[in-house]
Amino acid sequence: SSTANNEIADLPNLQWQMATSWPPSLDTIFGGAQVLADRVAALTGGKFKISPRAAGEIAPPLEVLDVVSQGAVQCGHTASYYYIGKSPALAFGTTVPFGFTAQQQDAWLYEGGGLTKLQEIYASKFNLIQFPAGNTGTQMGGWFRKEVSTLKDLQGLKMRIPGLGGQVMAKLGVTVQTLGGGEIFQALQTGAIDATEWVGPYDDEKLGLNKIAKFYYYPGWWEPGATLEVQINLNEWNKLPPQYQEAIKTAAYESNATMLARYDARNNEALQRLIEAGTQLRPYSEEILTAAQQAAFDIYEQFAAKDADFKAIYGEWQQFRDRIYAWDRLNQGSFTNFVYSKMKQ
Amino acid sequence: SSTANNEIADLPNLQWQMATSWPPSLDTIFGGAQVLADRVAALTGGKFKISPRAAGEIAPPLEVLDVVSQGAVQCGHTASYYYIGKSPALAFGTTVPFGFTAQQQDAWLYEGGGLTKLQEIYASKFNLIQFPAGNTGTQMGGWFRKEVSTLKDLQGLKMRIPGLGGQVMAKLGVTVQTLGGGEIFQALQTGAIDATEWVGPYDDEKLGLNKIAKFYYYPGWWEPGATLEVQINLNEWNKLPPQYQEAIKTAAYESNATMLARYDARNNEALQRLIEAGTQLRPYSEEILTAAQQAAFDIYEQFAAKDADFKAIYGEWQQFRDRIYAWDRLNQGSFTNFVYSKMKQ
Repeated sequence: SSTANNEIADLPNLQWQMATSWPPSLDTIFGGAQVLADRVAALTGGKFKISPRAAGEIAPPLEVLDVVSQGAVQCGHTASYYYIGKSPALAFGTTVPFGFTAQQQDAWLYEGGGLTKLQEIYASKFNLIQFPAGNTGTQMGGWFRKEVSTLKDLQGLKMRIPGLGGQVMAKLGVTVQTLGGGEIFQALQTGAIDATEWVGPYDDEKLGLNKIAKFYYYPGWWEPGATLEVQINLNEWNKLPPQYQEAIKTAAYESNATMLARYDARNNEALQRLIEAGTQLRPYSEEILTAAQQAAFDIYEQFAAKDADFKAIYGEWQQFRDRIYAWDRLNQGSFTNFVYSKMKQ
Repeated sequence: SSTANNEIADLPNLQWQMATSWPPSLDTIFGGAQVLADRVAALTGGKFKISPRAAGEIAPPLEVLDVVSQGAVQCGHTASYYYIGKSPALAFGTTVPFGFTAQQQDAWLYEGGGLTKLQEIYASKFNLIQFPAGNTGTQMGGWFRKEVSTLKDLQGLKMRIPGLGGQVMAKLGVTVQTLGGGEIFQALQTGAIDATEWVGPYDDEKLGLNKIAKFYYYPGWWEPGATLEVQINLNEWNKLPPQYQEAIKTAAYESNATMLARYDARNNEALQRLIEAGTQLRPYSEEILTAAQQAAFDIYEQFAAKDADFKAIYGEWQQFRDRIYAWDRLNQGSFTNFVYSKMKQ
């Protein structure tokens, strides 16, 4: 790296824009983009500045990949599973129903070959490179105006739930709707929908969903550990000095870690406030969970049958899942089950 | 940061040594130091080079803090709980029996005030600053030549187990010994000890402990998520350009994340090899776990009664623990318990 050494004085001043899928009011998830941008600036002595922009400013929230891929903006902060219509394998980059917790997802991405595989797809199909840059942890299972204990209770229920979680719910008889975050409250209030999911206590509280729907279900089996990511147009990436590439890569680790820590540190206090205001917690029944898991696995088989990328990743993902589930169940799982059994209720 | 901007051409060439507590053969944990060093070099265009050195080269493995504190070396990679003889509150920097999982530990350090509190102690007492730079995940509960099902089985048992785990075991009647990693195999073989703990399957396999002791217990309740850390002498830290400080801080996040991911990705395969070679897994009994947890809490109360730093951290730590346990039990815990219940046995 003596070359880099000699060139350090010549590092360019760069100002990039970053399209994001988030309103700044979701400060934890938008904060993931901000942490990344702040750290890249600090690592480059202020020479490389990235400006995260609210959803809608550069592109609609679910079209960040499109503008990054086209080079209309240098980079973005978004979730890969928004784009499974273009390539279903991208689901694995965020989370899939009955998939990995945050810690397991990190292990698969960083050390199980997941990130490399997804980068190959992104490079060849979308001319971009991406790195994990945030995780919400296990999300909650949504808000319901009436209790849903059995599969029968789900029939015809109108629920706002996008993505693969929505596809699973549709298989279980739910009438699935997709609405942006800003539209949910009113839809729930007018009865246009009977139920909705969003993220977890800290974010859901901001939408005021508890004021309409009394029952708050857990766990969010469709998003057990959702990764957000930074996406960079490959032409722009390839023009960067290696030191700036390293700054983005390393800053993304910090963003990934701190977002999860923030959700973990904030969710329980938000949940307590919701409970004090009248929210009632309900676990999904074994009947619903079992049927949902089977429906999810059926959907993955269907994707694998028609998409080669999905099939290739899914095979390796399943093997990794079986191993890391076994390890976590044995060791960390037995530890947490013991200490939780001793908690004051 | 226009100042930093103007000064970027003047960034110095630095070569630092890093004392570590690890033999390079423990490639995952020593690898945490290496990831940090590699990333700092990459982030500074090769100008800031850090050389991790094997345990014993600069200082004995349990005296890294001493040499960093004295300024005999610029930095180190070690575990804070090796130094609880100097300040018992340092236990919280690594892990304590019946404490946090890796994910919970990160949340407490990064977003629960833990890192800030520990940095105050390190600065005032040891003239150094530290950052999390690795995590082993939940460790295993050690190797036993005979099964231990009850508290009676533990009486007089000779076990190699250092630190707070050893103090808890001593309260339960175990004759506790501390031996370096290189001495364990022979002590177990000659019968000088009846049992030992080390880390987990991937590391334990290297010591060959399974060749002597048949029973492998879980979980490692004394180390549910052990953080390793980089320590930097404060005089050296304060001399660094801000950009180099940022490089260390950010690289430490990567080191923290990738070490955990490596352990998670490797431990189950190592465990399967051990089982195929004859190892028998055993869970700690409810009787032993319950007594060990009570003994641990008694020890923390004793520390708190005689050490103000410990008391101050322990009070906040307990509140954070109660909140994050409640959150994890409700949501991620109910998710993992469901999916693990559906695994093929």
